[in-house]
Amino acid sequence: MTDRSIKFEDLPEEYYALGGRGLTSTIVAKEVPPTCHPLGPSNKVVLAPGLVTGTKAPSSGRISVGGKSPLTGGIKEANAGTSFGQKVARLRIAAIVVEGKAEDNDKYLLKINKDGAELLNANKWLGKGLYEAYKDLYNEFGKNVGICGVGIAAELLSANSGLCFNDIDGLPSRYAGRGGLGAVMYSRGLKFIIVDDTDAPGVEIKNEELFNQGIRKLREALTTHDVTKPGGALNSYGTDVLINIINEAGGLPQKNFSAGQSDQAAMVSGEKKAEEIKKRGGAGQRPHACHPGCVIQCSEVWVDPNGENPVGVLEYESTWALGPNCGIYDLDIIGELNRQCNDLGLDTIECGDTIAVAMEGGVLDFGDGQKAIELLEEVRNKTPLGRIIANGTEYTARAYGVWRVPTVKGQGIPAYDPRAIKGIGVTYATTPMGADHTAGYCIATEIMGVGGTADPRDVKKSDLSRNLQLATAAVDASGYCLFIAFAILDIPSGLEGVVESINGVYGTDLKVEDVAKIGQQILDTELNFNKAAGFTKAHDRLPEFMVLEPLPPTNEVFNVSEEELDKVF
Amino acid sequence: MTDRSIKFEDLPEEYYALGGRGLTSTIVAKEVPPTCHPLGPSNKVVLAPGLVTGTKAPSSGRISVGGKSPLTGGIKEANAGTSFGQKVARLRIAAIVVEGKAEDNDKYLLKINKDGAELLNANKWLGKGLYEAYKDLYNEFGKNVGICGVGIAAELLSANSGLCFNDIDGLPSRYAGRGGLGAVMYSRGLKFIIVDDTDAPGVEIKNEELFNQGIRKLREALTTHDVTKPGGALNSYGTDVLINIINEAGGLPQKNFSAGQSDQAAMVSGEKKAEEIKKRGGAGQRPHACHPGCVIQCSEVWVDPNGENPVGVLEYESTWALGPNCGIYDLDIIGELNRQCNDLGLDTIECGDTIAVAMEGGVLDFGDGQKAIELLEEVRNKTPLGRIIANGTEYTARAYGVWRVPTVKGQGIPAYDPRAIKGIGVTYATTPMGADHTAGYCIATEIMGVGGTADPRDVKKSDLSRNLQLATAAVDASGYCLFIAFAILDIPSGLEGVVESINGVYGTDLKVEDVAKIGQQILDTELNFNKAAGFTKAHDRLPEFMVLEPLPPTNEVFNVSEEELDKVF
Repeated sequence: MTDRSIKFEDLPEEYYALGGRGLTSTIVAKEVPPTCHPLGPSNKVVLAPGLVTGTKAPSSGRISVGGKSPLTGGIKEANAGTSFGQKVARLRIAAIVVEGKAEDNDKYLLKINKDGAELLNANKWLGKGLYEAYKDLYNEFGKNVGICGVGIAAELLSANSGLCFNDIDGLPSRYAGRGGLGAVMYSRGLKFIIVDDTDAPGVEIKNEELFNQGIRKLREALTTHDVTKPGGALNSYGTDVLINIINEAGGLPQKNFSAGQSDQAAMVSGEKKAEEIKKRGGAGQRPHACHPGCVIQCSEVWVDPNGENPVGVLEYESTWALGPNCGIYDLDIIGELNRQCNDLGLDTIECGDTIAVAMEGGVLDFGDGQKAIELLEEVRNKTPLGRIIANGTEYTARAYGVWRVPTVKGQGIPAYDPRAIKGIGVTYATTPMGADHTAGYCIATEIMGVGGTADPRDVKKSDLSRNLQLATAAVDASGYCLFIAFAILDIPSGLEGVVESINGVYGTDLKVEDVAKIGQQILDTELNFNKAAGFTKAHDRLPEFMVLEPLPPTNEVFNVSEEELDKVF
Repeated sequence: MTDRSIKFEDLPEEYYALGGRGLTSTIVAKEVPPTCHPLGPSNKVVLAPGLVTGTKAPSSGRISVGGKSPLTGGIKEANAGTSFGQKVARLRIAAIVVEGKAEDNDKYLLKINKDGAELLNANKWLGKGLYEAYKDLYNEFGKNVGICGVGIAAELLSANSGLCFNDIDGLPSRYAGRGGLGAVMYSRGLKFIIVDDTDAPGVEIKNEELFNQGIRKLREALTTHDVTKPGGALNSYGTDVLINIINEAGGLPQKNFSAGQSDQAAMVSGEKKAEEIKKRGGAGQRPHACHPGCVIQCSEVWVDPNGENPVGVLEYESTWALGPNCGIYDLDIIGELNRQCNDLGLDTIECGDTIAVAMEGGVLDFGDGQKAIELLEEVRNKTPLGRIIANGTEYTARAYGVWRVPTVKGQGIPAYDPRAIKGIGVTYATTPMGADHTAGYCIATEIMGVGGTADPRDVKKSDLSRNLQLATAAVDASGYCLFIAFAILDIPSGLEGVVESINGVYGTDLKVEDVAKIGQQILDTELNFNKAAGFTKAHDRLPEFMVLEPLPPTNEVFNVSEEELDKVF
């Protein structure tokens, strides 16, 4: 971006058969100095579709985004399911690397199609919400494009600004949201990436037969497993099915992590949401996929009471963050807050944690949904208060002197209280990503009985967390949705199918046993980056208040020992 | 403070002949968990007069304040010269430890005299500026008290809130300012400490003869050395004498460290200031000491054009921070900004760095003194913008997306650009305190030719910085002002005198050679705390922009190697 030039480069041989998180973390670790300033000239944003993204493999439409995070100060990978990644892959682009900084004040749009790429001026979209901007962009560039963009939060260069991708209806609702990489992209001078895969060559598949065999096995597993099958939990209620389940377990954080259960939780449950969506009709009719070719289809679309103005999906973590965590139990308010987040380019989890901390700090009352919506208007208006909010949980806590700060490595803790469910706490503490439930989703085993069972209160969780972190890193490289893990952890042929599908595309000879090794390689790369950036075991800790303060109703504290945490890596 | 109780405890034997920084850092390291939240229940504030504070030893009125810093996240010691420390010592109190957190919303005043101590309600002073509050407090508690207080910045629990002590005229101008310990004290529930030494027993001196011999030698050195003698540099012009000297060296940072020299610097020089003070008359007549018994007397008092409304001293670093670093070259505006800092409880260096970063971020223009004054009114009014500013340089940079952030370990870099003068940069990078010129003042040797000479641009400065850091830690424990170092580095009998004076008070048998050992012990304690808090060599670095960006007019970058930095400790 320094001289606004575009280069197509052959993929170095060493990067062959790396994809998604495997490729973004490798490039970031190689090219970004670990101690650089995240918004300075040395940082980069890397976008890489997964290994099988763009093929007809089921539920494989993920794209990873990497860079040094302004939120955590460490390496970051965040990924999203979107046709954008599929289109990039079909153009046979392994990764887009955005580097340098434009010296002028103009902002740019990168347009990519089969003929090449160009940078166009994007100034006219500055200050616009993304719902309107994406509509404009589809009008200008046609219906066959994928869009990646950053919003007003990134224009503020704020640490809670995500990269937004189009959903299947063209809405700005699919986010590589965590860790503030939107600000890194915007600080290069880049506002949008438009990709058009018309007449694209498609993903090269070295061994069609093996590939087809693999995806058959995987599809079979996905359509059989209770969690992922048609009419199963995710397909029927979306991820929000977890509200009642986690509430029942006493691990659904209320009002800035001051309790783990509420009798009002059912008002924002997946069941309630499905019922409302059905009643309201219109754009919200379920089931809905986040990208073409998904067989799980958990992305039901939330709409207003008239069945209009679709928001996109309300995920469990978003519903929790903007709902119970703020003392809000009204799906329409939560929907509106989620719409604001999508429109502004804010990660919903971080934003919900932030609003709750602002509530604890006295900026507004717990439960005051209207004030919460107004708070996000401050971001839109780029006021000082908006700048505070857009910089996330820890930042907002400091502005208002709040010491109960639910973060690890500066990133807001998601929707599962680690005092009631210890394994997920081990993941929050030890993943190089900062508090991230997706990095090693112990909930699967501790609560859902997937991949075995484990008592949520058992404090020996280093092995469980490590194993899941390794598997997750590999899945995040594959381009498959992490939700395939529910099926392949329980159905061995599904896992075989995944490996065969990758071997089919790349002509490689990976074994099932190699999955953990691939994961370990990726994690080693990330952990080494963080170590060089200044992270130590002292950063692999949960916030002090979770160690000191019992969580009603279980009245558990986070009592996993530091030794157990340090055994993970 | 949890139950608002006060205990007098005998000094444990292991703490005997520890004082000042030696005692604060030892207690903090022993009693505060390194990974605790600085504003949470586990942090403490420790105030300890130096080893000879309260005696008639010349220039020995320092008091140290310690705790875990909300600004750096590491251990912090900040000290000030004030009669407050002398009074505490004369009551034979080795340290005041403020611990726990009041659960109620009331704020308290700790009153100490020869009969004991009590906690009084301090709510009536909340929201008041400290100039007015100190006047009230002297009216209420009498002229013979020393006052320690925290201001509106601490009421915001902000990371740039210092502990303020009375000067010799009772003004709130003597600060243990750096690192945000004001917020730590206020978060315990404590707003003021009033100490009255009427009929105090005084400091016990074990060997009067040796003590008297020691202070004679020291006084002789102080009154002989060019820097410290009556009519010498400090006595004639105050610390501000450095403006012209550092500007000449190309190391006086201008406009957020974008140049190292300005032809306007002379307008705010010590010479110019002395001339103005003389012309204006009134309260500002020089020379002025910061505490009774100082022979250096560098604290000339700044007044308004009518010779009224005394601010207190304008130190070199304050003048620079609020002046040239903001593109401001008007002593009256700088004086007003310094008054605001004193009144609000903000550290001047951090505040000047903050305003300059806000200027770079477009909040106001470089050079706009009026707007700068208004910006500090935002702190007084507790607005969101005020909360941003009160949280310091790095925090403000993040609010406005500024990547040229002059901080180390989160603390703003003081008045000497390390690109033009490398040794001070080695100190900024490696001291456990975050960027702190006083921690190992290489300027003495590099610019002033004290303790030998060194080429400012020579990059081999690890030995110089280490030696000065060790000596400084020992001086900070002694209770002597750091400025005695100018004399005792050049005059061996002065150093002997210092050691004899300590042996005289404590009946100890320290040798001159032990000074470095004492310093090493203190630094080891601090470095170990920081290591446990999560600091690594990656934090011992200057900001990226100083490595990348040449500084006019020398066009030097900070080119001390990481190996050289890592050789310090």
